[in-house]
Amino acid sequence: MERIAVFAGSFDPFTVAHLAIVKRASAIFDHVIVVVGKNVQKNSLLSVETRMRFVQKATANLKNVTVDSFDGLTVEYMKNSGAKFLVRGIRSAVEFDAERNLAWNNQMLYPQAETVFLQIEPELASVSSSAVREILHFGGDVSKMIPAEFFPDLISEMEKH
Amino acid sequence: MERIAVFAGSFDPFTVAHLAIVKRASAIFDHVIVVVGKNVQKNSLLSVETRMRFVQKATANLKNVTVDSFDGLTVEYMKNSGAKFLVRGIRSAVEFDAERNLAWNNQMLYPQAETVFLQIEPELASVSSSAVREILHFGGDVSKMIPAEFFPDLISEMEKH
Amino acid sequence: MERIAVFAGSFDPFTVAHLAIVKRASAIFDHVIVVVGKNVQKNSLLSVETRMRFVQKATANLKNVTVDSFDGLTVEYMKNSGAKFLVRGIRSAVEFDAERNLAWNNQMLYPQAETVFLQIEPELASVSSSAVREILHFGGDVSKMIPAEFFPDLISEMEKH
Amino acid sequence: MERIAVFAGSFDPFTVAHLAIVKRASAIFDHVIVVVGKNVQKNSLLSVETRMRFVQKATANLKNVTVDSFDGLTVEYMKNSGAKFLVRGIRSAVEFDAERNLAWNNQMLYPQAETVFLQIEPELASVSSSAVREILHFGGDVSKMIPAEFFPDLISEMEKH
Amino acid sequence: MERIAVFAGSFDPFTVAHLAIVKRASAIFDHVIVVVGKNVQKNSLLSVETRMRFVQKATANLKNVTVDSFDGLTVEYMKNSGAKFLVRGIRSAVEFDAERNLAWNNQMLYPQAETVFLQIEPELASVSSSAVREILHFGGDVSKMIPAEFFPDLISEMEKH
Amino acid sequence: MERIAVFAGSFDPFTVAHLAIVKRASAIFDHVIVVVGKNVQKNSLLSVETRMRFVQKATANLKNVTVDSFDGLTVEYMKNSGAKFLVRGIRSAVEFDAERNLAWNNQMLYPQAETVFLQIEPELASVSSSAVREILHFGGDVSKMIPAEFFPDLISEMEKH
Repeated sequence: MERIAVFAGSFDPFTVAHLAIVKRASAIFDHVIVVVGKNVQKNSLLSVETRMRFVQKATANLKNVTVDSFDGLTVEYMKNSGAKFLVRGIRSAVEFDAERNLAWNNQMLYPQAETVFLQIEPELASVSSSAVREILHFGGDVSKMIPAEFFPDLISEMEKH
Repeated sequence: MERIAVFAGSFDPFTVAHLAIVKRASAIFDHVIVVVGKNVQKNSLLSVETRMRFVQKATANLKNVTVDSFDGLTVEYMKNSGAKFLVRGIRSAVEFDAERNLAWNNQMLYPQAETVFLQIEPELASVSSSAVREILHFGGDVSKMIPAEFFPDLISEMEKH
Repeated sequence: MERIAVFAGSFDPFTVAHLAIVKRASAIFDHVIVVVGKNVQKNSLLSVETRMRFVQKATANLKNVTVDSFDGLTVEYMKNSGAKFLVRGIRSAVEFDAERNLAWNNQMLYPQAETVFLQIEPELASVSSSAVREILHFGGDVSKMIPAEFFPDLISEMEKH
Repeated sequence: MERIAVFAGSFDPFTVAHLAIVKRASAIFDHVIVVVGKNVQKNSLLSVETRMRFVQKATANLKNVTVDSFDGLTVEYMKNSGAKFLVRGIRSAVEFDAERNLAWNNQMLYPQAETVFLQIEPELASVSSSAVREILHFGGDVSKMIPAEFFPDLISEMEKH
Repeated sequence: MERIAVFAGSFDPFTVAHLAIVKRASAIFDHVIVVVGKNVQKNSLLSVETRMRFVQKATANLKNVTVDSFDGLTVEYMKNSGAKFLVRGIRSAVEFDAERNLAWNNQMLYPQAETVFLQIEPELASVSSSAVREILHFGGDVSKMIPAEFFPDLISEMEKH
Repeated sequence: MERIAVFAGSFDPFTVAHLAIVKRASAIFDHVIVVVGKNVQKNSLLSVETRMRFVQKATANLKNVTVDSFDGLTVEYMKNSGAKFLVRGIRSAVEFDAERNLAWNNQMLYPQAETVFLQIEPELASVSSSAVREILHFGGDVSKMIPAEFFPDLISEMEKH
């Protein structure tokens, strides 16, 4: 049976830390679906379509990775797509505390759902979408935080605003 | 002298985790007052009155538990009601970090106030009002997260929106 | 029904932080039993008898506090003494992590056992028996870390070695 | 290519928490090897052979799980056995802190080694080999902490001492 | 070469905990600049000018401390002012987790930037600007949380609203 | 007045993580003294003399760094040497919890003692003396964990055993 994993998030924008997790997940599972959450928040930087396009560009060379979007509970997407595994990147003890509750609640909602935690390289551990957004807001340099593939796109996207 | 304890919160909505704490507190103290905070937040699910009604239903069989509401600092309510003890449920190391500061600030404001931390059963540790609200928002099943006594009421309350 | 609480530990030696917890516990429960663990460890400073004597001296003015010793699982002592409550002092997020497992395992062994966590004054939070032992070992001044009542006794006890 | 995972530890003794992790790992990987560490510690309860026998009994119905022992760095065993994945059970934020360093050091020693963190059911989160050993030492009941399959064996093994 | 340190924040309002950090920093560095962030948030209590005036009053007797304001990334201010050191007060394990990411991201943006963490007295560890704002909002007494020098000013400032 | 800082530890052996902290400290303080603790523990790898020699080699090019040894409380060494600052490297939230208590106890024993926390590069955060010792014990490669200057010495030192 094919082992399908979901890696869900806002990805606003997709960072090198996200990419590192996707690469690792793609070596463990037969198929990894990166699911871009549609629930639009007030301070979002990019549209769902742009976020998806960026993920596709960054993961183009990973053959068993696809990109999708969804509006709802992650476990619902998992049920619909046949995914039994939920991949979460985890960087610190504090982060784990929230993740544990998420994992247990997901298992309550969908007992077959198994959360798998992966770590990223230490030197990427401080990279996050919110850090990218804040640094961009003040005109700082985020070139080390997002995949080179879509860096020019992100900058031109920014200039529209 | 009667030992009175306050268990204060938003209770939006009251969950099985809250109920577990109230039950434990009612075995320690002579009188436990569940105090529903009136400060209305933007994303609140239920009115203060509905929240109080739900707490009353869920705690009806606990003879030394009463329900009240308040708008202000918890220590002010404690001074007014003669309560010397503040009960807090605690589920994780990270949660404790914030709780400690609250406890110390409460003691600064009201030196007689003693904060007592209780734990809930591990299998309820991931249940929280915010998780209930998020799952409800996406149409998920929260029947294991809120007391059976008011589950039908909550659903009909939801349908009004 | 009388509410009896146990406060168990090595108390090698009993510190001002322990005393602060006992005082707080004595205001919550009808009877608090300070139970000195008999399991002798390699690097123990004081005999069980001396530790008990020190606790008695330090708590002499707390009318509902008694001192005892025990060799075994704390929950066994609780069953034998009719204590339903186990008091634990807690000072930091990290400490809570270990405490939670202890509390859950105690409840597995004795479902009636309720663990109640209390905090001490922030300025005493770094006081611990092991810190006292290490500072004493190097001839440092621990007079702020142990109750004034038995400080002279502790020093004369030390000089015997 | 077969995905082989190692689940290494002292397993002194193997607990229901360990078993839960092995079951979860066996659904993710093609082959899971439970590796019993040979480095004998002072306070060990069971011989390596007995520990292995207990793991075998408890995992007998998991077709893709085998048991082995090893004396050395876990990454060496991984290199020799062709395992690219190291499974770790994780229960709390604090535990994660130590695990992260282990994972990074393992990756330094063997860049292909990927650590995968899994969680166990909340109600098993306080179960640990050291808790089992301490409770057994004082004659307490550990029947809920170890797999039913080898509980009688463990007790008879204990009676030999 | 002069060692210049920046202590940046919202300081809305400046508290005794902030003051304790500034005092400690002023004993380590040749020059400490307290930088008040200009980015106005929705729930801010005081104007940037008032916040600066309060910091100046509270630090008037510290000869090597000056006050400034800035709108942008802290590392930009550091580059412009020749400051190589960023001072952060740290009170708890959980707080450190976020601080570490900030420090690493700052070093990515400005490799010369060194973050130096200082602690404050335990009895001030629960004091924070947000606690002051919340207590003030409900009419509570914050006189122990803010420097005596500008307490009357703060109260009169509050009465304008 | 000269600002003198102490960086104390077992340094068994001195690692690249220790070196990173010393380098950072030497840019903050006028003089940094690396103090090798003499209290010999059971499982020590190197003699105090060898540890000191290794620190000297690794820090030879840092002009304001000297090396010393001491047997006693770190604050005593600070009093004797005129050092007002104690430098501690800190890598994780959990580590901070223990460090805070140390810092507060040191300040109790010597009110002038100021603890300054520095971070190291993320990619060195998992390096520790105990990890080096364990990897060496099993014949693993620690060349990335200790300064190149004394790596051959360490290996030849190891071969003597």
